[in-house]
Amino acid sequence: MPNMPVPFGDDVSAVEIGHGKLAVLKTDMLVDKTDVPPGMSLLQAARKAVVMNISDLAAKGVKPIALLTSIGVPRTLNKRNIEQIGEGINQGAREYDAYVLGGDTNEASDLIISCAVFGIGEKRRLMLRSDAKSGDIVAVTGSFGNAAAGLKILLQGFSSPPRMRKTLVDSVLMPRARLKEGLALAVTGAVNASIDSSDGLAWSLHEISRASRVGFLIDTVPIAEEANELAKTHKLDPVELCLYGGEEYELVLTVKPTLWKKVSEKVPLIRIGRVTKEETLILKVGKKTLPIQARGWEHFKTTLPQS
Amino acid sequence: MPNMPVPFGDDVSAVEIGHGKLAVLKTDMLVDKTDVPPGMSLLQAARKAVVMNISDLAAKGVKPIALLTSIGVPRTLNKRNIEQIGEGINQGAREYDAYVLGGDTNEASDLIISCAVFGIGEKRRLMLRSDAKSGDIVAVTGSFGNAAAGLKILLQGFSSPPRMRKTLVDSVLMPRARLKEGLALAVTGAVNASIDSSDGLAWSLHEISRASRVGFLIDTVPIAEEANELAKTHKLDPVELCLYGGEEYELVLTVKPTLWKKVSEKVPLIRIGRVTKEETLILKVGKKTLPIQARGWEHFKTTLPQS
Repeated sequence: MPNMPVPFGDDVSAVEIGHGKLAVLKTDMLVDKTDVPPGMSLLQAARKAVVMNISDLAAKGVKPIALLTSIGVPRTLNKRNIEQIGEGINQGAREYDAYVLGGDTNEASDLIISCAVFGIGEKRRLMLRSDAKSGDIVAVTGSFGNAAAGLKILLQGFSSPPRMRKTLVDSVLMPRARLKEGLALAVTGAVNASIDSSDGLAWSLHEISRASRVGFLIDTVPIAEEANELAKTHKLDPVELCLYGGEEYELVLTVKPTLWKKVSEKVPLIRIGRVTKEETLILKVGKKTLPIQARGWEHFKTTLPQS
Repeated sequence: MPNMPVPFGDDVSAVEIGHGKLAVLKTDMLVDKTDVPPGMSLLQAARKAVVMNISDLAAKGVKPIALLTSIGVPRTLNKRNIEQIGEGINQGAREYDAYVLGGDTNEASDLIISCAVFGIGEKRRLMLRSDAKSGDIVAVTGSFGNAAAGLKILLQGFSSPPRMRKTLVDSVLMPRARLKEGLALAVTGAVNASIDSSDGLAWSLHEISRASRVGFLIDTVPIAEEANELAKTHKLDPVELCLYGGEEYELVLTVKPTLWKKVSEKVPLIRIGRVTKEETLILKVGKKTLPIQARGWEHFKTTLPQS
C-alpha cells in the first residue's frame, strides 16, 4: 500500500480514511495448546483472545469499536462449552466498551479463537514502535513478572501462600489491556514510541530498538512485589521473571523528557531507563551491566518461521 | 451496537464512520480438514481463504481495501510451505486490488488461515440480505453446479473427459469472487437483496428468505453446462448439484423489476425466478413443483452448533 500510515510489523495495521483519521485493524488468534495454560476456563480463554487484540490497539492509543470473531471448535466441545466461549468474548468486549458485531464457527482440531478488532484513530496521535528518540525516558505502565510467576504455579506447580497465589494466577487467567492508559497517553502527545509487552519486556524493548534504530539503557527492573516474593522463596532470578516472562499486557513507552513530568502526573508510569543512540540494549543493576537479550517467554510461543 | 448499519448475521459487519460511509469488516477462517479438498495446493488454499472473505464484501457491493491474516501452522509444514501460503494470500489479494497489511503465525494442529478484510462502503448503496421485496426478480451472476461436480471428481474419483475435468476441478481449486459484478450492481441501486452463495444456492435463498421475510418461486435451474454433462454421464440429479452444492461464489440477488432491463444490460445475470410474499421456497420445473430445502454442501461443513 502506498503511504502506509503504520509500518508493516507494528502492533496494528491502518488505512487512511480521510479527515486525518485512520481505520485501525488488528487480528490475532488464540490457540488453546499454546495460549491456554492449565487452570484457565473456556470463558477466560475467550476473554483473553479479546484482551490480546485490544491490548495492541491500547498500545497505539486507539479505542476499539468493533470486534469480529472466527472460532475453530474441536468436536469434543459441547453446546454449553461454546456458549461459555461466547460469554468470554462478550465479557472481554464489554470491559473495553467494544461491540461484538459478528462471528462464525468452524470445526478444527484445536480450539482457535481468532479476533479482528477495529477502531478509529487520529493519525497524528498514533503511538508507533518506530518513533523512539535518543534521550527519551523509557517507562512502563505497571510492574512485570507476575504473569511469569503465575505460569510457574500453573505449569510447574510452584507453591505460594494463598493470597499471593491468587494475585499471581489471576494475572495469567484474567489479563487486562492498558486501554485507559493508552488512550490517556495518546492525547498528551508526549509519547514517542509504544508497544504492548505480550512477548515480554526484553522482547518489547528489542522490537522498539529495531523499529526505531535506537538502544536502551535500563537502570530499573520493574519487578512486581509478588513475583519478587516468589523468586525469593524459590530462588528464582527476579530479572529473569521480569524481563523474559511474557503474557503480560503492560505498555512499554518512550517519552519526551520535556513532557515527562506532565505525562507522569496524568498516567501512573514507572520510569525504567533511557533511550540511547547506540543500538545496544543494556541493563545496569548497581554497578553491574548486562546485555538485554532478544528472547521472551517460550513455552507458549511457536518456534515456526514467520510468514 | 445502537443503530447497527448491517444486521447481525449478514455476510459482513459494519460501523458508521461519518459522511454516509461505513467501515465494512469480515473475518472468516479456512481450516484445511474441512475447506481444503485433496488436490488443492497450499498456495490455492491460502488464495481461497482470501477469496472466501472478499466474496462476502463483493456480495454487499463493497471494495476490499486491506487484508490481515492470522495463520495457524502445523509442525509438519516447513519454511517453503509457509512461503507458499504467503504467496497464495498475496495472489488472492492482488487479484482484487487489496493490500495485505499484516499477519502473524501461530502453531496449531490444523492449517488455519484466518483473514480479516476491510473496505469502505457507501451506506445507501450496501446490498443487504434483508431488503428483498415481494415481486423482485431473482437472479444469479453465473451458473451453478460446477464446484459440486468438481468435488465429486476430487473426493469421490468420478471420471470425466480431460477438458471438462479441468473446468470442473478448477472451479473448486481456483474459485473467483464476483467483485466486479458486486461493485457494478451496487451503483445501479437496482438490487434489493444480495448474498454470496458459498453455502449453496438453496441455502442462500433460505438466508434471504429468513432475513427479508419473503419466499421464492424459482422456475429456472441455473445448472452449468459441464455439471449437467457430468450429471448425465453419472446419472446424478442436476438439481441436486445446482441447488445443494456449495463452494461456489456467485451472487444471489433480488432485483427491482422496474430496473431489471437496465441492470441486466450492465451486468450479465441469469434470471431464475421471483420473490413471493408467502415465506415458502418453491422450485417449479415444468409442471412439477418441489420445496427448496434448507440444506447445502455437507462434507466440508461443520455440524457444530453455531455460537
